[in-house]
Amino acid sequence: MPEHTRPARGMRDFLPEDVRRRDYVIAVIKDVYGGYGFEPLETPALENIETLTGKYGEEGNKLIFKVLRRGEHEASGDVDLALRYDLTVPLARVVAEYRGKLPRFFKRYQIQPVWRADRPARGRFREFYQCDVDAIGSRSPVVETELCAAVSDVLLRLGFADFLLKLNHRGVLAGLLDAAGVPADLHATALVALDKMDKIGPEGVRRELEARGIPATTLADTFARLAAAGQGKKSRDEANHAVIGDLYGVLSEHADAAVAVDDLREIVDLCGATSAGPHLQVDISLARGLSYYTGAIMEIAVPDLAGSLGGGGRYDGLIGMFLGENIPACGFSLGLERILVVMAERGMFPPRVQSAAADAIVTLFEGEPIEEALRLAAELRTRGIRVELYPEPAKLGRQFKYAGDRGIRFAVIMGSDERARQEVTIKNLETGEQSTVPRGAVAERLAAGIERKAADPGV
Amino acid sequence: MPEHTRPARGMRDFLPEDVRRRDYVIAVIKDVYGGYGFEPLETPALENIETLTGKYGEEGNKLIFKVLRRGEHEASGDVDLALRYDLTVPLARVVAEYRGKLPRFFKRYQIQPVWRADRPARGRFREFYQCDVDAIGSRSPVVETELCAAVSDVLLRLGFADFLLKLNHRGVLAGLLDAAGVPADLHATALVALDKMDKIGPEGVRRELEARGIPATTLADTFARLAAAGQGKKSRDEANHAVIGDLYGVLSEHADAAVAVDDLREIVDLCGATSAGPHLQVDISLARGLSYYTGAIMEIAVPDLAGSLGGGGRYDGLIGMFLGENIPACGFSLGLERILVVMAERGMFPPRVQSAAADAIVTLFEGEPIEEALRLAAELRTRGIRVELYPEPAKLGRQFKYAGDRGIRFAVIMGSDERARQEVTIKNLETGEQSTVPRGAVAERLAAGIERKAADPGV
Repeated sequence: MPEHTRPARGMRDFLPEDVRRRDYVIAVIKDVYGGYGFEPLETPALENIETLTGKYGEEGNKLIFKVLRRGEHEASGDVDLALRYDLTVPLARVVAEYRGKLPRFFKRYQIQPVWRADRPARGRFREFYQCDVDAIGSRSPVVETELCAAVSDVLLRLGFADFLLKLNHRGVLAGLLDAAGVPADLHATALVALDKMDKIGPEGVRRELEARGIPATTLADTFARLAAAGQGKKSRDEANHAVIGDLYGVLSEHADAAVAVDDLREIVDLCGATSAGPHLQVDISLARGLSYYTGAIMEIAVPDLAGSLGGGGRYDGLIGMFLGENIPACGFSLGLERILVVMAERGMFPPRVQSAAADAIVTLFEGEPIEEALRLAAELRTRGIRVELYPEPAKLGRQFKYAGDRGIRFAVIMGSDERARQEVTIKNLETGEQSTVPRGAVAERLAAGIERKAADPGV
Repeated sequence: MPEHTRPARGMRDFLPEDVRRRDYVIAVIKDVYGGYGFEPLETPALENIETLTGKYGEEGNKLIFKVLRRGEHEASGDVDLALRYDLTVPLARVVAEYRGKLPRFFKRYQIQPVWRADRPARGRFREFYQCDVDAIGSRSPVVETELCAAVSDVLLRLGFADFLLKLNHRGVLAGLLDAAGVPADLHATALVALDKMDKIGPEGVRRELEARGIPATTLADTFARLAAAGQGKKSRDEANHAVIGDLYGVLSEHADAAVAVDDLREIVDLCGATSAGPHLQVDISLARGLSYYTGAIMEIAVPDLAGSLGGGGRYDGLIGMFLGENIPACGFSLGLERILVVMAERGMFPPRVQSAAADAIVTLFEGEPIEEALRLAAELRTRGIRVELYPEPAKLGRQFKYAGDRGIRFAVIMGSDERARQEVTIKNLETGEQSTVPRGAVAERLAAGIERKAADPGV
């Protein structure tokens, strides 16, 4: 294959089967989010360079794809535009630009590609989709709850029964670090170490904290004790409340943090009335990488994936960046590419998503009137049957093979004999069975055959 | 509004109402094309720069957005990537790259944005969607016919009853120019002049041809006569056959062109068996701008738009550009942005597309259990009702106003009185009517109210 027909490095062509799978997942996400009153937003792929620079830190800045100025300025090497790097900065820009037009509570979802010049690796691409859902304008824990419920509904609809929705709170984390005597300027460093509790255990965390000059004993003990508080409980809900009860004890002398525990407890209680309830796990070691979170933080875990399927949290300082004021906001981002990987590995796509381009092929014979085939195809399509018309007269065997290779299940044959009798032959290309039906009954018969297949995922 | 929160020049933010309209049109296009066995393809926004350079002529080349190399190469001003300029070159690349994996007849549609650094103007954007449908691998006129039928189905489904599908043939045009003694190297120039027949009439065309050194008398006469042949006929079909009959006469001594007339006639006859039939008009003055067409050419016209809603044709030389061989291909491109403009001007969007973000709002009272509201909202959503939950307890009037401003029609109220009686109040926010229903009947009652609204577009 000549080199120059490959897609650009780290980017992917999506052939029909890929698009069908992606569209299926995206349709479920849109339908669920729409059901919660979230509305779709789309922004341009290109932003003015000033909109993006300085928003993603030094490392992020290097990964932005920058667009050369055009015309007489092209030779200067100057850039004026850049490709969208995430969906949060565009959202902040939109909130500032259309503030008067947007509702007091702006609930939007946005499902679009972003571009990052990262080194490509397994599962890491330079063009990939983000699926963000954010609620702007309210500090109420109802917002976190509805986000957790909506994300849970998406995962349940896609067939994930075993996901864990981990919940923590930046205010609680800050209180625990304060209580353990960690100075505020070392909080971020400490959170990175504590985030590894799962992987390296309490002893590992203790060593790592000390290596970074953080007084570790109290802190590691507190975290180990809180983690233990949730263990051995009969239900996830009981475990969550045990951890929260312990938090009140540990943080009794830190007023700000106690308010955060109240917030956490209320989210847990409210989630109990939603689909998120059975999946919710308060996890004090959850830290989340991004620095901008100010309240609750969430992350989705499934057993067979090292990373998360998505995450989010409250970030009351970021959305107002272009307005110069704080605007309450809470959001969740689903990792479409990872969801697709797990669904493919587990075989979670329903048969209709896997299925062929068409339900039936209408065959063509040399010398026979093509108009009849066109009319038949049109009639079947009116019934919702997806019909491919073989474009050229050819031997029947050749047409059957073409259809079979494409996974098309039925062939509809109308030769001169059939036409003379006002009949049509329907051939099941999988079983070889064929039957002759009156011309007027073919749409109904075919529709029934296709439905039977759809109803039986085993076929 | 500060300058720096605007979208980049020539690009647009799509707020929820915009996205809903765009998604509606795109969903119809996908559904119709899918019904014909066309399959979705998506390619990356960025292509290697070599893939695009030299494909769009000198003018096109200047309009390509080019991406600066990154890291240590950034300062060099070198570019290595460019933004997709159309969907045809990526298709040609895909056909070359995945040739062994693609079916013998590759029927794909692709609906994605493209980027061109054109000077922005009314209706001309730097980021806009193309909706391409192409059938690769067959020279049969069934291909043109099915494309015309699919495009007609799309327009009819969207509510366009009055569109004209203009049809011509590059082979016929070449024959007519030959017959009139126009040398081959002046064909393109002559077509530009003839394309203006609608606007400047036969005399104007004659003057323009002569100004370009083309022997005009025979040519202009032929075109005027062919145009007249179709006039005053009882039906569009009769007019088309009159023009075709005349073409056979004019081209009787040009064998290649007579074959092209056969092809044109067959497409007209076959289209007669499809939804395209009543809209098809053979238009000898249709030329189409692009140089790569080799056979039939098509264009959609509606009375209230100067430009076209889309166009296409056969181009057997282009798709094989990366393979160095001819591969038969025929395609159609719908102008999404123009379709949206006309539909908005004519008020063609169905009520559900115009409608609010949610069907109902569930209200919240201070001090009342939020869990009940969450459960009610979840139950309504299970019934397919789109429900927004007001995120904070507030005065009812404030919640009603918020919902009313968003176009939400129903408020669902569950105060302490209602809860004590196991009842719920449903308030129609448009009429002010309200009724109290048993808690168990609320989903059914609300679903019925929403359906009644959907069924009555006058509301």
